[in-house]
Amino acid sequence: MIDPPAAAAPAGQGLGPVAPTAAARTRLRPAAAAAVTGGFWAGRRAVIAEASIPQGPGLLESAGNLHNLRVAAGLEAGEFRGRYPFVDSDVYKWLEAACWQLAEIGPGEGGAAGRQLAEDVERISTLIAAAQEPDGYLNTWFQLGRGEGRFADLTWGHELYCAGHLIQAGIAHRRATGRTVLFEAGRRFADLLDAVFGPEAKDGIDGVEGHPEIETALVELYRETGERRYLTLAGHLVDRRGHGLLGGSGYFQDRVPVRAAQDVEGHAVRQLYLLAGVADLAAETGEQELISVVERVWEAMAAAKTHLTGGLGARHEGESFGDPYELPTEQAYCETCAAVASVQWNWRMALLTGRARYADLAERTLFNALLAGVSLDGTRWLYVNPLQVRDGYTDPGGDKTTRRTRWFRCACCPPNVMRLLAALPHYLLSADVEGVQVHQYATGRFVAETGAGPVELSVETDYPWSGAVRLTVQRGPGDWTLSLRLPHWCTGYRLSVAGEPVRPEQQDGWLRVRRGWRPGEEVELVFDLEPRLTGADPRVDAVRGSLAIERGPLVYCVEEADHPGGGLDRLVLDDAAALAEENRPDLLGGVVTVRAAGRRRAGGRSADWWPYQPHLPLRTAPSGPDRPGEPTRPMEPGEPLALTAVPYYAWANREDGAMRVWLPTG
Amino acid sequence: MIDPPAAAAPAGQGLGPVAPTAAARTRLRPAAAAAVTGGFWAGRRAVIAEASIPQGPGLLESAGNLHNLRVAAGLEAGEFRGRYPFVDSDVYKWLEAACWQLAEIGPGEGGAAGRQLAEDVERISTLIAAAQEPDGYLNTWFQLGRGEGRFADLTWGHELYCAGHLIQAGIAHRRATGRTVLFEAGRRFADLLDAVFGPEAKDGIDGVEGHPEIETALVELYRETGERRYLTLAGHLVDRRGHGLLGGSGYFQDRVPVRAAQDVEGHAVRQLYLLAGVADLAAETGEQELISVVERVWEAMAAAKTHLTGGLGARHEGESFGDPYELPTEQAYCETCAAVASVQWNWRMALLTGRARYADLAERTLFNALLAGVSLDGTRWLYVNPLQVRDGYTDPGGDKTTRRTRWFRCACCPPNVMRLLAALPHYLLSADVEGVQVHQYATGRFVAETGAGPVELSVETDYPWSGAVRLTVQRGPGDWTLSLRLPHWCTGYRLSVAGEPVRPEQQDGWLRVRRGWRPGEEVELVFDLEPRLTGADPRVDAVRGSLAIERGPLVYCVEEADHPGGGLDRLVLDDAAALAEENRPDLLGGVVTVRAAGRRRAGGRSADWWPYQPHLPLRTAPSGPDRPGEPTRPMEPGEPLALTAVPYYAWANREDGAMRVWLPTG
Repeated sequence: MIDPPAAAAPAGQGLGPVAPTAAARTRLRPAAAAAVTGGFWAGRRAVIAEASIPQGPGLLESAGNLHNLRVAAGLEAGEFRGRYPFVDSDVYKWLEAACWQLAEIGPGEGGAAGRQLAEDVERISTLIAAAQEPDGYLNTWFQLGRGEGRFADLTWGHELYCAGHLIQAGIAHRRATGRTVLFEAGRRFADLLDAVFGPEAKDGIDGVEGHPEIETALVELYRETGERRYLTLAGHLVDRRGHGLLGGSGYFQDRVPVRAAQDVEGHAVRQLYLLAGVADLAAETGEQELISVVERVWEAMAAAKTHLTGGLGARHEGESFGDPYELPTEQAYCETCAAVASVQWNWRMALLTGRARYADLAERTLFNALLAGVSLDGTRWLYVNPLQVRDGYTDPGGDKTTRRTRWFRCACCPPNVMRLLAALPHYLLSADVEGVQVHQYATGRFVAETGAGPVELSVETDYPWSGAVRLTVQRGPGDWTLSLRLPHWCTGYRLSVAGEPVRPEQQDGWLRVRRGWRPGEEVELVFDLEPRLTGADPRVDAVRGSLAIERGPLVYCVEEADHPGGGLDRLVLDDAAALAEENRPDLLGGVVTVRAAGRRRAGGRSADWWPYQPHLPLRTAPSGPDRPGEPTRPMEPGEPLALTAVPYYAWANREDGAMRVWLPTG
Repeated sequence: MIDPPAAAAPAGQGLGPVAPTAAARTRLRPAAAAAVTGGFWAGRRAVIAEASIPQGPGLLESAGNLHNLRVAAGLEAGEFRGRYPFVDSDVYKWLEAACWQLAEIGPGEGGAAGRQLAEDVERISTLIAAAQEPDGYLNTWFQLGRGEGRFADLTWGHELYCAGHLIQAGIAHRRATGRTVLFEAGRRFADLLDAVFGPEAKDGIDGVEGHPEIETALVELYRETGERRYLTLAGHLVDRRGHGLLGGSGYFQDRVPVRAAQDVEGHAVRQLYLLAGVADLAAETGEQELISVVERVWEAMAAAKTHLTGGLGARHEGESFGDPYELPTEQAYCETCAAVASVQWNWRMALLTGRARYADLAERTLFNALLAGVSLDGTRWLYVNPLQVRDGYTDPGGDKTTRRTRWFRCACCPPNVMRLLAALPHYLLSADVEGVQVHQYATGRFVAETGAGPVELSVETDYPWSGAVRLTVQRGPGDWTLSLRLPHWCTGYRLSVAGEPVRPEQQDGWLRVRRGWRPGEEVELVFDLEPRLTGADPRVDAVRGSLAIERGPLVYCVEEADHPGGGLDRLVLDDAAALAEENRPDLLGGVVTVRAAGRRRAGGRSADWWPYQPHLPLRTAPSGPDRPGEPTRPMEPGEPLALTAVPYYAWANREDGAMRVWLPTG
């Protein structure tokens, strides 16, 4: 329906953010090269590349992040700017995004914008190296005299958290450009951490960081350098959790040892970054105990603590997971960073186990919880991602506003979305000795190393608008298995190879076709994609008696902008009427809308001053103010209303107003 | 059903916490003397008097509050103890409670316990006077060097808030005992505030306090002293809100001018204390504009921001009101202090307007949201009062735990409950020129000044267990009107006077009987009191498809303790089956339980790893892991389960476990 951009990017080369060693015990390995060249994700990524990432240096300058680094480097005088000890990480995450972008552009390519980006990366990387202490320490909050001193407050200091992001940025820089200035800065910090926190450290600190992130970074540093002590340190920091070093707090991921964990808990982003690190650790050590932990914790999370959008973190209080099935709508926190972290963790889980369900959750998260975090034009952001905004909503303002904002005081989310989407091609396909696995459907070109040799595959699709995916084997010697993920929402599909219908083997969420592939051979996969109504487990009290509209991987919502007169708190969906879809290239950057039948109850207050009334089947009840004995009138059925639902990811891109995902049926 | 305590307290004398001047424009005036002598409230108040209040000095000692005062008084060396600049107010609120208690005991009465209480009050009052600066300033946080100095941070300093509680305690001390040491301390502080913040202050501060409370205290100080400048200062502080002096924050009640307010918003306790002060101000100035404000704001709150229990403040985040109809269950904040404040405000509204609906909401709040805040034995407390605790609940610990706690780091709630229940007799009856109004039904003796002269009334009732109330006119010359509140939940009643059925005039929530009363004449009022099922306005999304059990003014809940095996997340109520009540003198201090029929769905996770499934009427859906095309099995109907509901106020007094007020019907 929507044309892919005319200019397709050249195929990306090299490693992505997750590159298991040859010795790793993962079932699958990331594709060796990956590029998104068209379709839905090319459009969204173009916005990130052309609007979001280029604005980064200016925003980091205005917010004071670069000033802090210049002061630490002795290049400028002044006080620390910003409210938090983790503001350096905003810079690192932006750099990581920019580096994945540079990899895609290619050295010396991309015109003036490409040169500017390369210059910005070089300049800021050099500044970071200059700001670093001779022993490798780097955190401008503490270097500029805030806080009680180096490693004195591990609960809140975020020093290892920032180190983790520095290490990841340095690895991205090296993998993308071959440059090592940032990589060496990260390694120096890692060496310091090993000397201070490592299991062999003399006079070291027996402590762990309040915000996980260093763990996954250290495993990747091990992968990049081959130096096992980084892996050992990651394992040590994982296993020192849950022993009261952080006060036994669930928020700080210290209530139970990681190996004893049964469920997600506490601060959602802390929990998810930690689990990504544990999955990495399990991949490299092959420890079955750790694999069991991440699998069972994922199951508990998916089954009872995940919003329909893939959003994670039910509570504003503590930015935390709630209890099982506590999944509120208007107060859903669903921090954008938690969606980023979930995609990162799910990719590691998919590689580790080979199971398609992790790609299912990653897909849902990408298309809904994550993408809602950035405006259609790439310049404004949401920190929290509720599933309902009421009529008469009072915007809380600040970072927790549901009005899109150019930047936050706590600006963790925007560069996090940038780095994930800049690296997105690396999260789509994998390979193993048997063949190639297509986790996500996106137009692009991919190279994967199979047991039969390198396979090159191109994919063309207008997914998620269309259910048709065409895959072409560009290169692919001998017999190998093409595994195509059957999305968990899918109720039907057709598959053909070289024009002939095929009935594939279905295994663990995959459609598997094994044959001797010839170059140029085409695979046609068509998913049924009609809009559908979805209900929730009855334990999800917040959405009882309500249904949501979905189509393919997209969750839909209704917005006040499409329903003049508002009253979204009073909508009733007719769940027996058919749903109809409509191509709307003119709307919200081009979407498929879904139309449904419903009605809008009469407005105004309850008949009495009190909104609770006797249940009618059993008795009569007061009907007038303060008068007993007369039967209550049932709520008026309300006026018929044609409902128009739009993809959730596109909400809050028009005038302010009410929104809801879950639609009451009575 | 439950015997009143054998020893009835003597009739209390004198003024309560709210005593409008002769010139006040209130429709009603509080009873001149009031005592609760038996029945339900005598039992609950005995616990407060015998357990809660006597423990106060020891707890305030352990928590450091008294230490802080001794240091400020120069009697002891040391640092400030505690985390907040408002800890002095814990002492003042305890003193206020103790003073109302002393008034009830009578001078020199009450045996050893009475003498101890009188000594404690004297000792602590003297300490407070000693801690006060010569110019009247008193706040140990700032006096002991915390914070940036006197009145430097009005948003968070709580200096005027603490002054308000000091003034109220001083007034209680004087009204209860005639002693003036505390009263003079409060007045000195008020004089300082007038000199600094008053409209005539030279070189003063144009500022208001982040936590309202001073307003209502200043009006009461005007009432106690006749000095109009306190009333003027109260009005000035009310009208300076909403002009950005507190950054325009809704949390701090500074977003809109009070006279422009249309709804409650922001921090619930701040909002409610402010509204109590505005109602007081309106009472004394007679300004119709202010009366309109408090009436319309109350209507908005009652209709769309009040939980079934009367609990207020939907959100943990900011301890704040939510949007209209945002009334979550497990994440309901419903701070105990907000319930206290609501009763205080509603009493002022009832006096101001003469409307029974305010007493209706006060009754609901007293019996449910407020009383749930204190354990049955009076020694353990809840700060937040959710309407649901899930299976598998993780207790957040700290002050926001739902496990009852002996004291909090932020200990505002316990002494607040104490002062309200110690003064409760003053919140029950009123009088006007026409006669007497019975707002709340409690066994006791009351004297009221009517146009016809003083009326003395005794009330006997086992309400809320029984619907029968017997009122006896002990003294009551000439013709006057007895107005009996017809509770808004009531669907039927019988009324007789001197044995003869009477059909009273019904007006604005009152049953009115006018006649020439003779001493000894008895009124029998019997409310129908069968248990009932209650539903919510459909805009209250959180409880869609659910009903609550109520009986009289009591909201009921189901607790895991009565349902071995738990699974309260899986309960289904059969809303067509009859409810049955049972007297259980053995249970929870003596309650009437309500039995209902229901079932418990099968446990375990959803069939798939994902808790959301296609809506069945429209299509088939995946039933196995990752396999499409087969119809989903409907949820098993579950095993039959006899449900036992107990009054919400009594929850969390047995072993820890799940609880819920709202019961799904499907």
